[in-house]
Amino acid sequence: MKRIGILDTTFARVDMAAAAVRALNERGTGFRIFRRTVPGIKDLPVAAREMFRREDVDLVLALGMPGRAEYDRTCAHEASLGLIWAGLLESRPIVECFVFESEASTDRELDRLARRRAEEHALNAYAMLFRPQDLHRARGSGLRQGFPDAGAVRPVR
Amino acid sequence: MKRIGILDTTFARVDMAAAAVRALNERGTGFRIFRRTVPGIKDLPVAAREMFRREDVDLVLALGMPGRAEYDRTCAHEASLGLIWAGLLESRPIVECFVFESEASTDRELDRLARRRAEEHALNAYAMLFRPQDLHRARGSGLRQGFPDAGAVRPVR
Amino acid sequence: MKRIGILDTTFARVDMAAAAVRALNERGTGFRIFRRTVPGIKDLPVAAREMFRREDVDLVLALGMPGRAEYDRTCAHEASLGLIWAGLLESRPIVECFVFESEASTDRELDRLARRRAEEHALNAYAMLFRPQDLHRARGSGLRQGFPDAGAVRPVR
Amino acid sequence: MKRIGILDTTFARVDMAAAAVRALNERGTGFRIFRRTVPGIKDLPVAAREMFRREDVDLVLALGMPGRAEYDRTCAHEASLGLIWAGLLESRPIVECFVFESEASTDRELDRLARRRAEEHALNAYAMLFRPQDLHRARGSGLRQGFPDAGAVRPVR
Amino acid sequence: MKRIGILDTTFARVDMAAAAVRALNERGTGFRIFRRTVPGIKDLPVAAREMFRREDVDLVLALGMPGRAEYDRTCAHEASLGLIWAGLLESRPIVECFVFESEASTDRELDRLARRRAEEHALNAYAMLFRPQDLHRARGSGLRQGFPDAGAVRPVR
Repeated sequence: MKRIGILDTTFARVDMAAAAVRALNERGTGFRIFRRTVPGIKDLPVAAREMFRREDVDLVLALGMPGRAEYDRTCAHEASLGLIWAGLLESRPIVECFVFESEASTDRELDRLARRRAEEHALNAYAMLFRPQDLHRARGSGLRQGFPDAGAVRPVR
Repeated sequence: MKRIGILDTTFARVDMAAAAVRALNERGTGFRIFRRTVPGIKDLPVAAREMFRREDVDLVLALGMPGRAEYDRTCAHEASLGLIWAGLLESRPIVECFVFESEASTDRELDRLARRRAEEHALNAYAMLFRPQDLHRARGSGLRQGFPDAGAVRPVR
Repeated sequence: MKRIGILDTTFARVDMAAAAVRALNERGTGFRIFRRTVPGIKDLPVAAREMFRREDVDLVLALGMPGRAEYDRTCAHEASLGLIWAGLLESRPIVECFVFESEASTDRELDRLARRRAEEHALNAYAMLFRPQDLHRARGSGLRQGFPDAGAVRPVR
Repeated sequence: MKRIGILDTTFARVDMAAAAVRALNERGTGFRIFRRTVPGIKDLPVAAREMFRREDVDLVLALGMPGRAEYDRTCAHEASLGLIWAGLLESRPIVECFVFESEASTDRELDRLARRRAEEHALNAYAMLFRPQDLHRARGSGLRQGFPDAGAVRPVR
Repeated sequence: MKRIGILDTTFARVDMAAAAVRALNERGTGFRIFRRTVPGIKDLPVAAREMFRREDVDLVLALGMPGRAEYDRTCAHEASLGLIWAGLLESRPIVECFVFESEASTDRELDRLARRRAEEHALNAYAMLFRPQDLHRARGSGLRQGFPDAGAVRPVR
């Protein structure tokens, strides 16, 4: 039985975790989900480390939605570095799933993008834990999350 | 009994900690507050680590006010990274509450923004320690600190 | 018998690892290759640390292809810092091989550049493990990977 | 008896440490000063860690003067991050005092600014060790080092 | 007997280490030099940590030459941060000596600048190990490496 941690924020404008949980449950079984909500993306790194330590999760999915301001990009950069350090300190994977508000031009588009990206990152998390061979088969094939895949330059043998 | 550390600076132009303490005390009981003032925001990370070690606090609220100059943004970035490292090293949360002088156009506006943001981050800190379910209920709902909430793109179930 | 880890991503649009493995096998023997594919470049640092710990590899070759957007450059920067930390924490080398999509103007050019750079970094990895004297002889000689060498300003004695 | 480390550089164009030492000695007693000079600001973080370990100082005052070039700002940023890490690793304060050459337009002005800022940071260091209540009283009052204070937006009670 | 590590790269276009070794040998005795060449500047931090651990060197001189592209500046920034971390983790000094190709306009000028800067950093490394009093005497005197000294704003007493 694997243990998956899902972190999200009150700052985000879409319930990305709901989409992630649904995608995980539709994908398979053999895991238990632990959840926690923090205020903003800068709180994610420590919360991830706490989850690894307290709930002994095998992987954390960290969901966040930086705002439109220039400063939000700086915050996202800091949070991303923090998530990488947290993963390195624990030597366990943290799948970062950030959707920038500025990636969408309408609320409806933002909602769709955020849910789709959360789902696709959740499926990546599932594959990292249960189906590494699926990731290996998809190497170099230009996969994207939330947007259409870019595709391989030429087919992977 | 939880222990909350509050750090502030002599550089800030508003007594943000006063607002934070008031908000905490109006919100509930069951905690003890430890306070310390350092010169500037770059001194916050080490002071936070010291507080975790000496006063064994459960959470640190780090209050700061970067100035208007371009260089102040660099300092804030460095301080933010330092606060994330400090939290990771201790595996305990540090709630960063920074108000940039440039966010307000008058002293009166700066005063109001700084107090309001300090209060709202203090309430977040309270929720992290005592009411995690409140944060979870507010997931993906576009909360902001010091400014009006952005709101959820569509209602969270 | 040396152990070489090769990491790649599903985000990349070229199977860079295939080129790297081929180059290694054509170059010599005395090593065993371990492979793993992760979703994107930000997943490489933790995967590298895991490989050092689980497979006890002597060196990791980390292959990635950041996209064309400004944000992809930020992600590459974060991933690079993470790879350096991972190497430092383990005190073992990680050879980073990133090809930015924006370095090529056509798919064909991107394919060629990515394969060539992966090969040349694989040969560097081989030299680091088996032929350090080759690297020493080539000191200060302006070698490049994937592009023509810049050359030494004047011949190295 | 407290132990204060003072680090400076051969790169700086003003003997900032002289001003700092004078300010400390005029301010009080009960401390011993340890000094060391390194080539440039990037050498300060390791020198600070060494001082904590070898001389067991309670605090390090790190004095530096980045040059006018764009690249010097990058170096200062790297040095600042290093100083924060060094302080975190030791869990002891490092008071950074940098004066950018570009902050002054004449040598005379640079000299005055550097000495004044060094003095004021030295007094902050003194307060951190001996008079934390002074810092606390000055919270949120807009203090600056080397330039006139910005002042509190409204009086701190 | 002190132990000095010298690292250089195959990416650099000048044999900077030759100049550094010559300067060290002309300056004095009482040290043994250990050398290693890595492909590029991003490989320097781990190689430095390895040298501290395997050869037990007292100091590492890390020589590199970032290219002219914007991306090379990012790589240099990452390498610099890595060198600072490596030094902090070992609590032993790493003297970084980088020459940007863009600092010179001709190959001849680049050659001269690189050799001169390598020599001057090598002499700094020597002073850090054997003559700290020389560095102390030169505090605040505006020394530069590879370019004419900026000089002290007014004479240091």
